[in-house]
Amino acid sequence: MKRVITFGELMLRLAPEGYLRFVQAEKFGATFGGGEANVAVSLANFGLDSAFVSKLPGNEIGQAAVNSLRRYGVDTSEIVRGGNRIGIYYLEKGASQRPSKVIYDRQFSAIAEATHEDFGWEKIFDGADWFHFTGITPALSDNVADICLEALKYAKKNNITVSCDLNYRKKLWSREKARSVMGELCRYVDVLIANEEDANDVFGISSKGTSVTEGKVNAEGYREVAKKLADMFSLKAVAITLRTSISASDNKWAAMLYYGEEYYLSKSYDVHIVDRVGGGDSFGAGLIYSFLSGKEPAEAIEFAVAASCLKHSIEGDYNMVTADEVEKLALGDGSGRVQR
Amino acid sequence: MKRVITFGELMLRLAPEGYLRFVQAEKFGATFGGGEANVAVSLANFGLDSAFVSKLPGNEIGQAAVNSLRRYGVDTSEIVRGGNRIGIYYLEKGASQRPSKVIYDRQFSAIAEATHEDFGWEKIFDGADWFHFTGITPALSDNVADICLEALKYAKKNNITVSCDLNYRKKLWSREKARSVMGELCRYVDVLIANEEDANDVFGISSKGTSVTEGKVNAEGYREVAKKLADMFSLKAVAITLRTSISASDNKWAAMLYYGEEYYLSKSYDVHIVDRVGGGDSFGAGLIYSFLSGKEPAEAIEFAVAASCLKHSIEGDYNMVTADEVEKLALGDGSGRVQR
Amino acid sequence: MKRVITFGELMLRLAPEGYLRFVQAEKFGATFGGGEANVAVSLANFGLDSAFVSKLPGNEIGQAAVNSLRRYGVDTSEIVRGGNRIGIYYLEKGASQRPSKVIYDRQFSAIAEATHEDFGWEKIFDGADWFHFTGITPALSDNVADICLEALKYAKKNNITVSCDLNYRKKLWSREKARSVMGELCRYVDVLIANEEDANDVFGISSKGTSVTEGKVNAEGYREVAKKLADMFSLKAVAITLRTSISASDNKWAAMLYYGEEYYLSKSYDVHIVDRVGGGDSFGAGLIYSFLSGKEPAEAIEFAVAASCLKHSIEGDYNMVTADEVEKLALGDGSGRVQR
Amino acid sequence: MKRVITFGELMLRLAPEGYLRFVQAEKFGATFGGGEANVAVSLANFGLDSAFVSKLPGNEIGQAAVNSLRRYGVDTSEIVRGGNRIGIYYLEKGASQRPSKVIYDRQFSAIAEATHEDFGWEKIFDGADWFHFTGITPALSDNVADICLEALKYAKKNNITVSCDLNYRKKLWSREKARSVMGELCRYVDVLIANEEDANDVFGISSKGTSVTEGKVNAEGYREVAKKLADMFSLKAVAITLRTSISASDNKWAAMLYYGEEYYLSKSYDVHIVDRVGGGDSFGAGLIYSFLSGKEPAEAIEFAVAASCLKHSIEGDYNMVTADEVEKLALGDGSGRVQR
Amino acid sequence: MKRVITFGELMLRLAPEGYLRFVQAEKFGATFGGGEANVAVSLANFGLDSAFVSKLPGNEIGQAAVNSLRRYGVDTSEIVRGGNRIGIYYLEKGASQRPSKVIYDRQFSAIAEATHEDFGWEKIFDGADWFHFTGITPALSDNVADICLEALKYAKKNNITVSCDLNYRKKLWSREKARSVMGELCRYVDVLIANEEDANDVFGISSKGTSVTEGKVNAEGYREVAKKLADMFSLKAVAITLRTSISASDNKWAAMLYYGEEYYLSKSYDVHIVDRVGGGDSFGAGLIYSFLSGKEPAEAIEFAVAASCLKHSIEGDYNMVTADEVEKLALGDGSGRVQR
Amino acid sequence: MKRVITFGELMLRLAPEGYLRFVQAEKFGATFGGGEANVAVSLANFGLDSAFVSKLPGNEIGQAAVNSLRRYGVDTSEIVRGGNRIGIYYLEKGASQRPSKVIYDRQFSAIAEATHEDFGWEKIFDGADWFHFTGITPALSDNVADICLEALKYAKKNNITVSCDLNYRKKLWSREKARSVMGELCRYVDVLIANEEDANDVFGISSKGTSVTEGKVNAEGYREVAKKLADMFSLKAVAITLRTSISASDNKWAAMLYYGEEYYLSKSYDVHIVDRVGGGDSFGAGLIYSFLSGKEPAEAIEFAVAASCLKHSIEGDYNMVTADEVEKLALGDGSGRVQR
Repeated sequence: MKRVITFGELMLRLAPEGYLRFVQAEKFGATFGGGEANVAVSLANFGLDSAFVSKLPGNEIGQAAVNSLRRYGVDTSEIVRGGNRIGIYYLEKGASQRPSKVIYDRQFSAIAEATHEDFGWEKIFDGADWFHFTGITPALSDNVADICLEALKYAKKNNITVSCDLNYRKKLWSREKARSVMGELCRYVDVLIANEEDANDVFGISSKGTSVTEGKVNAEGYREVAKKLADMFSLKAVAITLRTSISASDNKWAAMLYYGEEYYLSKSYDVHIVDRVGGGDSFGAGLIYSFLSGKEPAEAIEFAVAASCLKHSIEGDYNMVTADEVEKLALGDGSGRVQR
Repeated sequence: MKRVITFGELMLRLAPEGYLRFVQAEKFGATFGGGEANVAVSLANFGLDSAFVSKLPGNEIGQAAVNSLRRYGVDTSEIVRGGNRIGIYYLEKGASQRPSKVIYDRQFSAIAEATHEDFGWEKIFDGADWFHFTGITPALSDNVADICLEALKYAKKNNITVSCDLNYRKKLWSREKARSVMGELCRYVDVLIANEEDANDVFGISSKGTSVTEGKVNAEGYREVAKKLADMFSLKAVAITLRTSISASDNKWAAMLYYGEEYYLSKSYDVHIVDRVGGGDSFGAGLIYSFLSGKEPAEAIEFAVAASCLKHSIEGDYNMVTADEVEKLALGDGSGRVQR
Repeated sequence: MKRVITFGELMLRLAPEGYLRFVQAEKFGATFGGGEANVAVSLANFGLDSAFVSKLPGNEIGQAAVNSLRRYGVDTSEIVRGGNRIGIYYLEKGASQRPSKVIYDRQFSAIAEATHEDFGWEKIFDGADWFHFTGITPALSDNVADICLEALKYAKKNNITVSCDLNYRKKLWSREKARSVMGELCRYVDVLIANEEDANDVFGISSKGTSVTEGKVNAEGYREVAKKLADMFSLKAVAITLRTSISASDNKWAAMLYYGEEYYLSKSYDVHIVDRVGGGDSFGAGLIYSFLSGKEPAEAIEFAVAASCLKHSIEGDYNMVTADEVEKLALGDGSGRVQR
Repeated sequence: MKRVITFGELMLRLAPEGYLRFVQAEKFGATFGGGEANVAVSLANFGLDSAFVSKLPGNEIGQAAVNSLRRYGVDTSEIVRGGNRIGIYYLEKGASQRPSKVIYDRQFSAIAEATHEDFGWEKIFDGADWFHFTGITPALSDNVADICLEALKYAKKNNITVSCDLNYRKKLWSREKARSVMGELCRYVDVLIANEEDANDVFGISSKGTSVTEGKVNAEGYREVAKKLADMFSLKAVAITLRTSISASDNKWAAMLYYGEEYYLSKSYDVHIVDRVGGGDSFGAGLIYSFLSGKEPAEAIEFAVAASCLKHSIEGDYNMVTADEVEKLALGDGSGRVQR
Repeated sequence: MKRVITFGELMLRLAPEGYLRFVQAEKFGATFGGGEANVAVSLANFGLDSAFVSKLPGNEIGQAAVNSLRRYGVDTSEIVRGGNRIGIYYLEKGASQRPSKVIYDRQFSAIAEATHEDFGWEKIFDGADWFHFTGITPALSDNVADICLEALKYAKKNNITVSCDLNYRKKLWSREKARSVMGELCRYVDVLIANEEDANDVFGISSKGTSVTEGKVNAEGYREVAKKLADMFSLKAVAITLRTSISASDNKWAAMLYYGEEYYLSKSYDVHIVDRVGGGDSFGAGLIYSFLSGKEPAEAIEFAVAASCLKHSIEGDYNMVTADEVEKLALGDGSGRVQR
Repeated sequence: MKRVITFGELMLRLAPEGYLRFVQAEKFGATFGGGEANVAVSLANFGLDSAFVSKLPGNEIGQAAVNSLRRYGVDTSEIVRGGNRIGIYYLEKGASQRPSKVIYDRQFSAIAEATHEDFGWEKIFDGADWFHFTGITPALSDNVADICLEALKYAKKNNITVSCDLNYRKKLWSREKARSVMGELCRYVDVLIANEEDANDVFGISSKGTSVTEGKVNAEGYREVAKKLADMFSLKAVAITLRTSISASDNKWAAMLYYGEEYYLSKSYDVHIVDRVGGGDSFGAGLIYSFLSGKEPAEAIEFAVAASCLKHSIEGDYNMVTADEVEKLALGDGSGRVQR
């Protein structure tokens, strides 16, 4: 069984019930999520040997975070326990013309304040085939950015494939800082994932005829973006997710893969949204699984898009779908008929 | 008041809240449902004298099942109490491209292990005008199939109209077994109801140009199917429901009635789904009510489709709508404006 | 800060959870709402000094009603406490072809039985810039209609702008009674708000080519209606909301403003409904805010429609949105993208 | 099977969840209850043929009230539908030193405004063995008091045993009015039930050494009260419940029966309270069941006290226990050991 | 109406439902609480003009905190908005032998990082009669300790009575630091409140024969403690709460007041606990109310203990009781009988 | 780290919310539990390497069962997936005089129908130090009894300590059958655990002066029982739990250990019950942990009783406490004071 290591932050996610606004809520659903952890759970659900590496406080909230991963089969043995607090994000689910809203309270979290001594990459990478991180992780603190670099160097030297989801978060760092740090880290990356905005935000690479807020996405134009990214960092593959936001309730969802100088555009899904947070992460997991299970590029992008299409119908950050369920959709049954 | 007898299994329905997947659930909504019981409740809601016949365990879970029917006015005096367990079905509600999922745990239920001695059809049918069952009931066990036959013979002899919803369940029996048993039972049936797949699954009768998983339904093609069924069993009427599954969240819903050598195609509804389980049963109830209240065929099929259209907006197996509400929709007000 | 006085009834709103029907419910969400109170909360959310005037019983349920307003910053110091009961309305949320249903139990409420002595308009209007009421308030009782008239006269004399939302409720009074009373009251009104039906129900003014139950609304035709209303009562402005009911789940929503002999038609939104009760009230609040903050007519109508578009995505009667959120939508971002 | 008729008001009971105060609640549990209806459900749970007579509005809330009785097997065929509203009571559950609080909103309810024409006692009493009402019913309105009298006269003439629970409600009428009306009605009563306060409140009969608010109850002293009541109205039996309120969480509970000039004092239970509303009603039902099933006085009072002891452990007004469960406790197993 | 100013931190309180442990929770009740805010709400519930002063972030979570106070009538106009985060505390409710557990995540909160410029004490204290703070506030940061001192000096100069609840939190500062800072601040205090441990923890003043963990409290011994405290800081009054912890479910609760060289020991309550957090704060509020409404010392301590006794029966930090309810208990009705 | 293997059935536990009776429930809490799995979770919570062996269906409900163990750190790698269904038990929580009620629906479960081929004991026991099972497991079916015997023989041969909790379930087998099978299996047991009834039910060994239903337990008398059991099977240790059932809400809880010809009686706890299911299992886990961590007998029994005392305050079958928390209570702090 292939083993994948992911490294990042796992946060407590506090979300009002249903479509209540923050100021109306008297209860918060308390689940956990974070870019790389989401990928880890998704991969475990696909049947891979999936380990998540991070630092979480020694208290019961930290333990609950660990448990949320163990529950779904993620290897949590390399999660360091210590530090002061778990990062939090508050999520208010949008509907129709009202957008979802995220409030971050992640400063001073255990992982943001972690040090080199916390992680022994040789042991962590023992038996690993793949390493995945996102652009959020190095943005947590300079320390964590350095730890990332250390991990990447070790992975590179030991022929572990590296994937990165650009995932620019403007609340965490400036575009300039992001460009500088990610420019360095991306040199160790094999597979790069980005959405319509990331490439522009981080590396200033954009495509014409696309306006995110107007809900227009120009799939063709992204070919150029993908190629530029691939060339800039000698990447093996670049995947770009293409979301057309009709409203907070309805999106179109597709993706493009640039691989071996070829372009592969997936089919596009009309998605009625249950919970879109983690949509990009589920795409990343789909892509990693596809590559690790030897799918052809055209199949790989269809699997990844189908996986993330399904994510939009699932509550919480984690994509709770099996590889079988994804294959079924990728092969064309999106009719949603009851399965008895 | 017209009296209708229905006979079948009533199951405990365990469903995660909202759109949670089974593996995410910490609570199950605990309601009850089953093809014929669903019809019974719907008929009671329409104001008919509706009785449900079955066997349920003597314990409190069995009592809760009985109570769920009494609550809505169904006559439960002919439900036998005994046996070991109530059948269960677990329901996970789908959304968008993710299908709903049903896990059955109905083996060894009280009704599946019932015997001839449990039911005295003469007393049960006293004062009855109509008898309804589905293809699920004889599939429960050979015993129950025999009991069904006995009931049908008694009904036939006493001029009680008989309706049957084919409802093929592949987890309960093979197509061959179904064909043999239902072929025998259908000889006593006056009104047969089927969906797009049943006729093919049970009797190998299909129409061209229809692909269920692709979400295409060829209404015209079903004329042929209906006529073949009617001819095969000398039926007075055949009704076929026509579902076009756009996704687990959105369906088109219509139906066709073959009656007196004529075809009646209903209008088609664009349904945004709250809960589609029991959709077919609510159609059956609508049809029975229509016939018993003397509606013309064209009105009958519109009433039945409107009733079942509304079912899709209602939580649980039971169709909680009055005849007035159905008439209103059948007459054309589907605007959903607030009624004050 | 501009100060707005609203006067009317605040009711306890009892609503089954989710899409459950009344007869399925074992719990009711217990919130509060009423035309003018809804406007008051919305204005407080926009940052205005907003006061609600009414009478509520001295018991804890009355206190909870008061608290629901205080919570969101409404000035409740002029609410009289006394009387026997709080009015109640039961709300069943519709979906797809099944309409929402409202059952009123508001007779004999504290406000309906209030007397002139309960309200001292001179003190209430101290510092006020605007007075708002709806056609529901004078319909509560003859006494309340008289109190309304008294308030209007005081407002007129003191140059306080007056707005009225026609809001005809057939359960409260006949068309004839409404026409007579509202005809008198409207003489003191500056800004009149109505939906597609109100003008016809109350003043017999209608437009051609519009059928509410068929979901057709003829925006052009309403120009005539608006002009007739304006002329009849020498109004400064008339605003008409234009709802096209596709189903209980999906509506189109727009509005028209007649101001200074000019017509301003807003853009139209495709709304996926979370809760549409209070939609009209949130429009009124949007309009009042627009005028008080000096917006041009074209901006005003866009702000009011955007505000009420957002209301449809929010649970409860109260429109929980800030002026910033409304501006953002009015300026064109209805893509519903996550805001981090 | 013995048939018991009960007559009175069934109210919607709105209660915050758990121990929340009214002003903290955002949800109300919505169940139904009322003195006589509580008795009716309890008797149906004991296996008797139990019918409840009342008037309830024709709307869905009235229907839900009816359904709450049907669900547990009560015959609701003699409930008249009509009138404007269902009575409501708000219930806040107390704990420790904080008392439970009830707010009534029952004026103008359908039953309070019912007329003689609504009830045909000959048909209602067909096949009846027992008639039960409480002192709340005649307090609803003069009309209802008259209807009560009519029913009592019919019952007397037809040898139907009559029981009455004095149940004085000071919010409904004065002591003087109660004394006058109940004095007349009690002449038709065979079995009278009262708690520690009722006899004093209604008929000015008290016992020494008892102080309700200090939590002292003098069982011996009540002998005298019982005898006085029996003599005053030539009663066959008088039962007095004896509650010692230690706190809102813990009570002592016992009762005394005066029958055939003998006194029977039950054992006393230390009750840890889940919900004490309906405690007295469940005692009445236990007594009626005991007499109708031919128990000796000593057994009868033990059964009635055990039944009502169990009620304190059950949520809602209705006592959801079987006769078997009561017998078991009456025979001495109050250990609460798990029953597998 | 007397005006009271309180100053401190208001935190988001996240608590699993019922008795679930942190690691079992999937939902958190989301309310707000903090020593001084709890006092503020309690005083507003008693009918005083109560204002809470603090700093809270400008986001929606900060707004919800503000709203939680406005809802219950607290003046929030002097709460500064800004800073990065709201402090959080996680609360797991204990039962029987399992203690409640609190995890703090309050570092870097808006109030902890507030500066002198944030608060204008002259304006804040305009019209104020009383100022209250707890030992938690100066422990938040050196800055806040300084701000406290500034406030105290202003209060002293302007004859505003000052009360302080010692409330030692070992997670926030060392005993040494606490002693030094509180020693300075207490010089401006008129009324000091402490529980059995605080005096010892902060000032090393203890009484013999008392062991908190063994559940023994020596009321007599506290006389000496109170007197020592009073003498040390020239206090007008010292109140000591006396909790005997039988288990997490049951406590004894009483208090002692040292005033004018006299000792007043309250009656003792056997409390069955619903939620004991905020018990001490509700005592403080009861004492402030008592003094401001001119009660005699013996009445004052009974009122304060009765108020806080009731708090133990109420969910959340805030004591939701009226002065009337407290008086009733203080006068002796702790029987918990239903109030209709 | 010591490794413990447990073998048995894991069931879906369906329980109404709070104190609702089965027939009142509309929702079931859905958790998992079973004697040996409860022990396994408890041991994992204590920090041991704990593995649970069983067979569970391949569907999502089986997966959720597995996940419930993984979540808390139990090694589930030796759980076989297959078979038709998961066993179910319905649990109604009692209160005061009303006992808790359990309805089993466990026939035909995957584990009951498991075969020898399903389990490879050599692999399973690799690295194991201890093996635990209960008397429920061999009662599931003859097959499972044989599998148990096979496991025991392997364990014996490989010096793995064996503990057994007698746990007689009369619904699963007769006393005669139990005596015969358990008599055989107990020959391989080192540590035997029983409650007050088991020894009598299974082996006819009883003590005088004890009446379970009367709530009397004679600790002294159990010495004799323990010794007889030890002698009969050459046991190293016998532990007997001593429950005095005051009511369903309050129990006394203690235990006795017979070890090396000595008796050790634990202290006794007055327990206010949150959930007592799994109380015995948590005792077993405490005992195993004690022995494996080298505690003296007197400490061991105190630890085991303290662990199970805490279980009574925790929802669900699993005992969610750490070894630290148990030690703290065993050392004497049962005051339940808040831990901050």
